[in-house]
Amino acid sequence: MTTPTSTTTFVKNAWYVAAWSAEIGRHLTARTLLGENVVLWRRQDGTPAALVDRCPHKLAPLSLGELVGDDVQCGYHGMTFSGTGQCVRIPGQAAIPPSACARSFPLVERYGAVWIWMGDPAHADPAVIVPVQRYGEPGWALVDGQYLHFKTNYLNITDNLVDPAHTTYVHKNTIGNSAAEDVGVKVEQGEGHVLAYRWINDAEPVPLVKAMGDFAGRVDRWQYYYLILPSVSYVDFGCLDAGQEHGEAERNGSRFRSFSYNFLTPETETTTHYFWLHLRNYHAQDTEADAQVVRLMTDTFLEDAAILARIQQEQERTGVREYVRLGIDNAPARIRRLVSRLQAAESDSVTTQTTEATS
Amino acid sequence: MTTPTSTTTFVKNAWYVAAWSAEIGRHLTARTLLGENVVLWRRQDGTPAALVDRCPHKLAPLSLGELVGDDVQCGYHGMTFSGTGQCVRIPGQAAIPPSACARSFPLVERYGAVWIWMGDPAHADPAVIVPVQRYGEPGWALVDGQYLHFKTNYLNITDNLVDPAHTTYVHKNTIGNSAAEDVGVKVEQGEGHVLAYRWINDAEPVPLVKAMGDFAGRVDRWQYYYLILPSVSYVDFGCLDAGQEHGEAERNGSRFRSFSYNFLTPETETTTHYFWLHLRNYHAQDTEADAQVVRLMTDTFLEDAAILARIQQEQERTGVREYVRLGIDNAPARIRRLVSRLQAAESDSVTTQTTEATS
Amino acid sequence: MTTPTSTTTFVKNAWYVAAWSAEIGRHLTARTLLGENVVLWRRQDGTPAALVDRCPHKLAPLSLGELVGDDVQCGYHGMTFSGTGQCVRIPGQAAIPPSACARSFPLVERYGAVWIWMGDPAHADPAVIVPVQRYGEPGWALVDGQYLHFKTNYLNITDNLVDPAHTTYVHKNTIGNSAAEDVGVKVEQGEGHVLAYRWINDAEPVPLVKAMGDFAGRVDRWQYYYLILPSVSYVDFGCLDAGQEHGEAERNGSRFRSFSYNFLTPETETTTHYFWLHLRNYHAQDTEADAQVVRLMTDTFLEDAAILARIQQEQERTGVREYVRLGIDNAPARIRRLVSRLQAAESDSVTTQTTEATS
Repeated sequence: MTTPTSTTTFVKNAWYVAAWSAEIGRHLTARTLLGENVVLWRRQDGTPAALVDRCPHKLAPLSLGELVGDDVQCGYHGMTFSGTGQCVRIPGQAAIPPSACARSFPLVERYGAVWIWMGDPAHADPAVIVPVQRYGEPGWALVDGQYLHFKTNYLNITDNLVDPAHTTYVHKNTIGNSAAEDVGVKVEQGEGHVLAYRWINDAEPVPLVKAMGDFAGRVDRWQYYYLILPSVSYVDFGCLDAGQEHGEAERNGSRFRSFSYNFLTPETETTTHYFWLHLRNYHAQDTEADAQVVRLMTDTFLEDAAILARIQQEQERTGVREYVRLGIDNAPARIRRLVSRLQAAESDSVTTQTTEATS
Repeated sequence: MTTPTSTTTFVKNAWYVAAWSAEIGRHLTARTLLGENVVLWRRQDGTPAALVDRCPHKLAPLSLGELVGDDVQCGYHGMTFSGTGQCVRIPGQAAIPPSACARSFPLVERYGAVWIWMGDPAHADPAVIVPVQRYGEPGWALVDGQYLHFKTNYLNITDNLVDPAHTTYVHKNTIGNSAAEDVGVKVEQGEGHVLAYRWINDAEPVPLVKAMGDFAGRVDRWQYYYLILPSVSYVDFGCLDAGQEHGEAERNGSRFRSFSYNFLTPETETTTHYFWLHLRNYHAQDTEADAQVVRLMTDTFLEDAAILARIQQEQERTGVREYVRLGIDNAPARIRRLVSRLQAAESDSVTTQTTEATS
Repeated sequence: MTTPTSTTTFVKNAWYVAAWSAEIGRHLTARTLLGENVVLWRRQDGTPAALVDRCPHKLAPLSLGELVGDDVQCGYHGMTFSGTGQCVRIPGQAAIPPSACARSFPLVERYGAVWIWMGDPAHADPAVIVPVQRYGEPGWALVDGQYLHFKTNYLNITDNLVDPAHTTYVHKNTIGNSAAEDVGVKVEQGEGHVLAYRWINDAEPVPLVKAMGDFAGRVDRWQYYYLILPSVSYVDFGCLDAGQEHGEAERNGSRFRSFSYNFLTPETETTTHYFWLHLRNYHAQDTEADAQVVRLMTDTFLEDAAILARIQQEQERTGVREYVRLGIDNAPARIRRLVSRLQAAESDSVTTQTTEATS
């Protein structure tokens, strides 16, 4: 079994984090998203705007220009565009040709991030943005605004995020732990998501739980790795006193639980923006614990980034993604299959539209 | 209207500045011109010579070798070539095979520069080298020997050099001036050139004119942007006391006039050698004014270089040169059209020659 | 006559030096050989092992993993491979699928080097490793463990190693000597090798011979340049008192003789590993003479590396290897022809095997 790499892996009809809210202001920010150059800014009323970062006249990047009121003015000849992409001024020319416009992208601001829709704007429904659990709830500490750049295709990262098996080896210096190596992982698939999870029961609390929790004896520990298609991951982690029921009610009552969210936005086919935030219900007022989360998670993710960059290089060199599939690939393989279906649906829809347009 | 980029834009049958005269001496100078590697040197009598920078034997760059008398000796096996490209010596071998030759290029030295002809040598007529006005005339100060490297196709620069509209935006920190923004530009087309020009009448002298000129009151100011095909530009700039006639006679009598010449030589399809010189009839003995010209022009051209490099990148990424054409593109569009015609004529001529050769 | 470059020049069925013995130990060493990434290490009993440097699961480089006993453990999920390429462990999975294996390469350790066979293992006969003359014999000093990296195709180096004519020009600052320029070179071709040689008779000893030899008067000096296909070169150099017979017996009796071996291993089509060692029978106990050999040979080979890198660039730019063939190309041309035959034989054999496999 040899699986070739795909030449294109983007799902366009989805919400992606374009930037943390704090990054976007009364200045022009350039960023490549799903292979497209985008310029972002805020209007005077604070609402964000995004255009393709390319003047339709001579292709000068609009981000080299200036913000003039709510609009962006090209730095080459002063053509000015509103956040909807309409040209509102051409210096020295009264008539504005219809082709003098720049593509705009729907944006929504939520969870401290600016979300962008790179696909067909007709389907850009804010209701389908992934809900972030416990966000803003009392008793939950938030660490947000975190960013890393991965030199690998985003699906190599989604593979990794539903794959507890790699932690023993890749993260042996951070969160790895060979004890859990042989505990089986269960995989479930739902509408638009894949879940891999496991319980490690009746065990000594791991060091983090020992340090930050208040368990007298042994615990049952869970890890639920969710992947919401196409590329939002979250890990639900927590502990109960050993021997309790494992239902949602018990987990909701846990004194020790965290949600770790990773929002992956493809930059190009071979690089990925990695935005992450973290919520926890223990030591919620403890800013040293916040700093510890940032340090530990950053170190851990950088270990992933290092090996996934080398894997990307080998995939490019060989044109192959895998030569053998293992049992631990159950969840990753499901994600790849579902993403392929989303892509196929998008190209069908494009075909249908084209057919309609030409008939 | 979407205009694709061209894969090749070179006009070969034309004189290009290969180097300033002072650069070429009794040593070997390597330079890429119109995509070809060239080696230049001076013979013992001072005349310049140019060959393709590649030994026909094993392709060693001749510029790694040595100048031996009037000839260049390859640094690999000592094959020696005269400036006409003939092999005059093969160490250890008496017979010189006919294929043992290197292509030579016609050269002419004029205006302090070495001009090269990269096309069909049969058409290399020195009489068609662009005349540089006022060069060497008394009362005219010369600033020459100036060079910049642009990371953009040369036609992006010619576009720019007949386009006064960009100065307000690109050069807002140097020579830009929003007052002139709405003054219309007239365009004329002649045999082998395009001219864009405008008069700004009855206006306060601009700071440069105020500082260096001797006008009591308001002035009429002209800017004539010439583009001599394929890629020599000159800007004729000057002032008259407001209200005078605007004829050639009056301009010739002006106490304040400059000619700014830019000689563009394509290096590759995506990079350009930018040689420039400047002539003026004010403060002609003032060396501080010379230095000021160098500083101001260099700063201004570097602003062009920065934005045109980014435009080049976008053109390469998209394969598109423009999505919309504006009124200000009249002169640039004419140049592109005339250059395309020159290129078409060259490939016709090649076809004809080939047909003759094989029939 | 214009000879195009070849897209592939590797001969796979041959022994190549992969590394000096001292480089390979109880750690993982990554190296690219004939375009393939290879990981090398030593088992606990000291025998070397080599696998393709790529886990068959997700393509992680095995060299990023760890040595566990005799085996290499992947750093991503802990899949473990023996030196024969068999998977001996998949953490969390009992059954090992047949495709879970990594390609291994036959190795032989000889002459202080680890030799690798990148072709069909069925033909990997250690008996065909090039014999290194006088290696380990009393009275002969050995300088080994030397390495240089050349940015050129290996056949540009083999050309160079049977070509005394270039020394006058490329090595004018090291070993070059224009006196020998016109002494004819004889070329012989045998089973699997090409030999170019010359005698310079009745001449003053060259400086090296004067300094290190003990000749009272004039000498006859020989240079024999052997190229053992595909890419081992050795130079047999020595002197006799002028006027003696020139037979093998007399040369064996010479008081001044050296063998300089160069083992070329293609890294990629455009880069080459250059391993070299040197044997001499003069000043055999003199460690300062050893250091002098290293300095002189390194300086000389770096002069070759510099020009051959530029030639590689020109070959890539033009797709041409030579435009004219000279008399001095006799030996290089024979090598190219014999290498092409070896390549053709390999692809015939592959075709035959494939036909058998599918019939």
